[in-house]
Amino acid sequence: MSQVAGRMAVQAGACALEWEQGGRGVLIGGVPGVAPARVVILGGGTVGFNAAQMAVGLQADVTLLDRDPAVLERLSNHFGASVRAVYSNRTTIEEHIYHASLVIGAVLIPGAAAPRLVTRAHLAEMLPGAVLVDVSIDQGGCFETSKPTTHADPTFVKEGIVHYCVANMPGAVPHTSTYALNNATLPHVLALADKGWRQALRDDPHLRAGLNVCAGRVTHPAVAQALGYPVAAADDLLAGP
Amino acid sequence: MSQVAGRMAVQAGACALEWEQGGRGVLIGGVPGVAPARVVILGGGTVGFNAAQMAVGLQADVTLLDRDPAVLERLSNHFGASVRAVYSNRTTIEEHIYHASLVIGAVLIPGAAAPRLVTRAHLAEMLPGAVLVDVSIDQGGCFETSKPTTHADPTFVKEGIVHYCVANMPGAVPHTSTYALNNATLPHVLALADKGWRQALRDDPHLRAGLNVCAGRVTHPAVAQALGYPVAAADDLLAGP
Amino acid sequence: MSQVAGRMAVQAGACALEWEQGGRGVLIGGVPGVAPARVVILGGGTVGFNAAQMAVGLQADVTLLDRDPAVLERLSNHFGASVRAVYSNRTTIEEHIYHASLVIGAVLIPGAAAPRLVTRAHLAEMLPGAVLVDVSIDQGGCFETSKPTTHADPTFVKEGIVHYCVANMPGAVPHTSTYALNNATLPHVLALADKGWRQALRDDPHLRAGLNVCAGRVTHPAVAQALGYPVAAADDLLAGP
Amino acid sequence: MSQVAGRMAVQAGACALEWEQGGRGVLIGGVPGVAPARVVILGGGTVGFNAAQMAVGLQADVTLLDRDPAVLERLSNHFGASVRAVYSNRTTIEEHIYHASLVIGAVLIPGAAAPRLVTRAHLAEMLPGAVLVDVSIDQGGCFETSKPTTHADPTFVKEGIVHYCVANMPGAVPHTSTYALNNATLPHVLALADKGWRQALRDDPHLRAGLNVCAGRVTHPAVAQALGYPVAAADDLLAGP
Amino acid sequence: MSQVAGRMAVQAGACALEWEQGGRGVLIGGVPGVAPARVVILGGGTVGFNAAQMAVGLQADVTLLDRDPAVLERLSNHFGASVRAVYSNRTTIEEHIYHASLVIGAVLIPGAAAPRLVTRAHLAEMLPGAVLVDVSIDQGGCFETSKPTTHADPTFVKEGIVHYCVANMPGAVPHTSTYALNNATLPHVLALADKGWRQALRDDPHLRAGLNVCAGRVTHPAVAQALGYPVAAADDLLAGP
Amino acid sequence: MSQVAGRMAVQAGACALEWEQGGRGVLIGGVPGVAPARVVILGGGTVGFNAAQMAVGLQADVTLLDRDPAVLERLSNHFGASVRAVYSNRTTIEEHIYHASLVIGAVLIPGAAAPRLVTRAHLAEMLPGAVLVDVSIDQGGCFETSKPTTHADPTFVKEGIVHYCVANMPGAVPHTSTYALNNATLPHVLALADKGWRQALRDDPHLRAGLNVCAGRVTHPAVAQALGYPVAAADDLLAGP
Repeated sequence: MSQVAGRMAVQAGACALEWEQGGRGVLIGGVPGVAPARVVILGGGTVGFNAAQMAVGLQADVTLLDRDPAVLERLSNHFGASVRAVYSNRTTIEEHIYHASLVIGAVLIPGAAAPRLVTRAHLAEMLPGAVLVDVSIDQGGCFETSKPTTHADPTFVKEGIVHYCVANMPGAVPHTSTYALNNATLPHVLALADKGWRQALRDDPHLRAGLNVCAGRVTHPAVAQALGYPVAAADDLLAGP
Repeated sequence: MSQVAGRMAVQAGACALEWEQGGRGVLIGGVPGVAPARVVILGGGTVGFNAAQMAVGLQADVTLLDRDPAVLERLSNHFGASVRAVYSNRTTIEEHIYHASLVIGAVLIPGAAAPRLVTRAHLAEMLPGAVLVDVSIDQGGCFETSKPTTHADPTFVKEGIVHYCVANMPGAVPHTSTYALNNATLPHVLALADKGWRQALRDDPHLRAGLNVCAGRVTHPAVAQALGYPVAAADDLLAGP
Repeated sequence: MSQVAGRMAVQAGACALEWEQGGRGVLIGGVPGVAPARVVILGGGTVGFNAAQMAVGLQADVTLLDRDPAVLERLSNHFGASVRAVYSNRTTIEEHIYHASLVIGAVLIPGAAAPRLVTRAHLAEMLPGAVLVDVSIDQGGCFETSKPTTHADPTFVKEGIVHYCVANMPGAVPHTSTYALNNATLPHVLALADKGWRQALRDDPHLRAGLNVCAGRVTHPAVAQALGYPVAAADDLLAGP
Repeated sequence: MSQVAGRMAVQAGACALEWEQGGRGVLIGGVPGVAPARVVILGGGTVGFNAAQMAVGLQADVTLLDRDPAVLERLSNHFGASVRAVYSNRTTIEEHIYHASLVIGAVLIPGAAAPRLVTRAHLAEMLPGAVLVDVSIDQGGCFETSKPTTHADPTFVKEGIVHYCVANMPGAVPHTSTYALNNATLPHVLALADKGWRQALRDDPHLRAGLNVCAGRVTHPAVAQALGYPVAAADDLLAGP
Repeated sequence: MSQVAGRMAVQAGACALEWEQGGRGVLIGGVPGVAPARVVILGGGTVGFNAAQMAVGLQADVTLLDRDPAVLERLSNHFGASVRAVYSNRTTIEEHIYHASLVIGAVLIPGAAAPRLVTRAHLAEMLPGAVLVDVSIDQGGCFETSKPTTHADPTFVKEGIVHYCVANMPGAVPHTSTYALNNATLPHVLALADKGWRQALRDDPHLRAGLNVCAGRVTHPAVAQALGYPVAAADDLLAGP
Repeated sequence: MSQVAGRMAVQAGACALEWEQGGRGVLIGGVPGVAPARVVILGGGTVGFNAAQMAVGLQADVTLLDRDPAVLERLSNHFGASVRAVYSNRTTIEEHIYHASLVIGAVLIPGAAAPRLVTRAHLAEMLPGAVLVDVSIDQGGCFETSKPTTHADPTFVKEGIVHYCVANMPGAVPHTSTYALNNATLPHVLALADKGWRQALRDDPHLRAGLNVCAGRVTHPAVAQALGYPVAAADDLLAGP
């Protein structure tokens, strides 16, 4: 679903930049003679990578920020000069969002609340009509001013900045999302059906890593930390007969 | 403006494909494991070329049809395997639009009415929720069922097919369009201001080629033919003192 | 050798598609104005990846099917829109091979018999003169109708479909294959010569992973399973003095 | 047809390089660790351009020679570092063919005999088992040792060098060639049928440029020169009532 | 020679940016995590195109300015998103050079003095240690503060800005330049030797276009205008017996 | 820093190839009609990869040699036909350096002395004016004739071959290098400051892997081997209270 959301973030942002939607009225890739819009992507995981692919494909001027040197190297090698891969800190974030037409928040920390990278105070320094797309909205959002919206009414304007914060972005393309989800989950569903949940979780570390709660205990470290519960070892809970 | 319209056609089409807009609910570029949407572009001029650039950039499965072998060769050399450049005739058009999620009509014959390439009867054979974007709408449209729409209400559904027929597409991105228009017209404006219209038109064959009416006579061959007027030679009308 | 076989599969298929060889008489990459041939590659391992590289290079219309989401994502990121990376199941295989001019079977399960992905019944639905290249022939083939052939007489026609099933494909390009094999094996050969087989196998887990039989016992899990023998732990057999 | 022939030249050459066909036994694109084969293309017109596209696509090490600086610049800009575009003269031809595994002769001078760029004496200096593909064979061939062959028996070996000199290369892929030919000729056929030959030739300078003989007189300058006839002006012969 | 100069401009600029040379001490392409240097190229002719190719190749952040919409479109289509092709005027020039690490002046008006695009006053607004490479120095230079330098001492610093103004840039790579020059001029030299200068000039419009002075009269319009002489028609002067 | 050094190696080599610097006077990427210079890169680690990116970007004719098949495969997949990835041994090194204009030594064995891949005897067989850039100079250099130089006087000529052996290459671009270094080290610096060195080393295996000496004992295996000391286990030395 992160792939779908990352790819959709760019087309949603491109449409929100249209004048009618309250945006700056810029074409994301410009045209020969007119420079393209600046797109800033916060986070270089699956969402950020897929967003970068689409933004580059539309010929935008793309900067991606992340804190992990290994991620920056991999992205830089993949995209070459078509994406600026920049180390993320307060200074570089501010430096880049103030000139951006589109900022995509793609900072997902599994199970934990997203960090607030762009505050209300930042908005006043941004270009009027710039667009924020908050893909992290399902985990609270990475912009201070984000609040969940729906596909029926996807955007709102605050401090002159257009916010797109649809909570279930893949829902807009159910045809694609259903197949993508099936491809990812069907093998697990078959294992659960064939072996029973306990054995299936024992056999497959990837499936087990997705276990949040078992026998009334929180087994996922990030969930436990976010909610203030102790974390229980999945292995122990699954070990019984 | 053709560059702007061609590029916008793809993002408008991508958004119209969303379920909420009445579209098929497919993501134009698919995701790994799920094949991308088929995009068919009718016409390989400036509009079609720019649309193809953006559609390829979004990783769609793109076919472009045109009747001019030189255009097909140039496009094929430019895009390589990422665009199928196919000779356009009734058979190939039908073959391709029946499997397409997005059809972009980009057939512009300067000054003349656009040919009706997709008829009402074709719509019944197309995929439900497929999207037609008619960039030729300013010259009557190249789909039989097209009628002009506005940015405030850009689409309508007919026979299960979503139609996007905004008459002034570049108006959605006025920031970009204004600069693009200035770049293209400012040299002519300066020439008109500096030399007067008659001398400016005499000196510049490109400007003269854009003259439609002069001294009450139609000087543009395609306009004359479309409206049933005789065509007058611009050179003669400009020759006077 | 998988690299050589994967790359050769495309040139062998391209030649087998020629009319004189019994093929459909299509040029794999088409020409401007004429759509390219559809190439379907079953399996995204080393063979499939190398075949995809060559097929894209010849500007074919390439679809690659695999069951592993991680493989699909890696291939999709590598090839972008020039290869459709599709999740493999009975439905998608049938959907794609019925329109294909060239199908390359590249499903290799180490030590095990290849699964029969294309049956005799499928052939009747395929395009007459389509070509099957079975790179899995060394492990029994992944097409039901495959039987091994030689470089001297590489193809046969069954049910109107051309089969290329040369058992030792790299043998066609011995100059390249010899160097490739030397590069891959020389370090192991030197280790075996310097240290003796037992110590060399103890020191290098990659070499040990290639051990099939030791002290009369089958040590490779896939071989053991395919032949119905119990599997013995290589570590134990090598531990002795 | 030049597009088809240029593209086929590479796949024909790749197959002829196989050991079984008498070739050097090299894989045209090599594999990681083993350098690719050197491919030399003589002539940068439509045939040479299409051959270069395919050879680059197969990851060969490609050098293209031509005498026209404008052609070299265009090819160099198109292919970047993946094709060496080298000025063609006796020295550079010899320098390059002596290290080549595949030499493609693509020197077509419309209506005239092809120049003999590679002589019998050159063959002794070439790599044993190298392959010559003579696309110019229809105009006498650009290799001294060429003589026409057929798809049924496409190659012969002379001085240790494999010659592929099929006179009608596009005949191997009739499905593709027929469509390509239709696309190119149908508009002319319709014009001839609608207007009669005389008027059609008068109206269309491209069609007229293809006129070889009219009213018993040779009208094509190159044909006239090659055959020793005087050249007659097509315009005059067509002017009559 | 413009090709050589354009390509050299980037490597000369990259080296002049080193700290030891007085430059800003930035690596032109940055590294993963550190944004690349901004390179601004003034002029999109042969020099500018070749400079852009190399700057993009080094993964710089490249903007190219030109006044001709057709040039901007061609460059934009060629480079896609890796070069911003921007319409050149006073505003856009200032906007871009003030953030640039490297500015390449590639404005060549054949036979005329180069326009002064960057003035002394501009230098104070530029980044300290930025580099100017003036490829137009042979025609007076397009930076106000340029004065010719030599390969032995190629740069000087003025107002904190490094100037590279070597008058004969191709002289640094005589091996390459000699071959390039031979390729371009040998056909003309042979024509002059074979036919005599008068006939050679009559026969070849390209050669004739290079004629500056004939029979004591200036025949090149731009030279005549720059020096204040009347321009004589080459055709008339060559017509004599 | 390896990224900076690898990228700088190419621009340093390009400049050293200029005639004024004692080089062959070739432009690294050639121009249309004149073949590019051959660049040979010894070693496919971070330095070699970054050097290859830049050399390809300048359109050089690049060969990279390495002994690790996995490295060769990864590089070959990344660069496709634009870099020849060749298995490194005495024969292939000699084969390639004798025709090279630029050889970049990028063989870094962590903590150990670099192997001497190019000897004094090799120099006599190389092209006069060829350039060696020894990025391994900090570990003794991988060319027999290397000796450290400085940015103030970066090259010397020995046996007609230009040597660039600056010991601290990133020092030439301190602006870029400082940021790159900060990005890589700041997280470690913060951990050291927050937790104390002992705990920081205990918690982070990457940091611990960089520990060379602890409590008077050599803890890095390669350093110990190179200097003839016994190696101590870092884990034990850090375990104390």
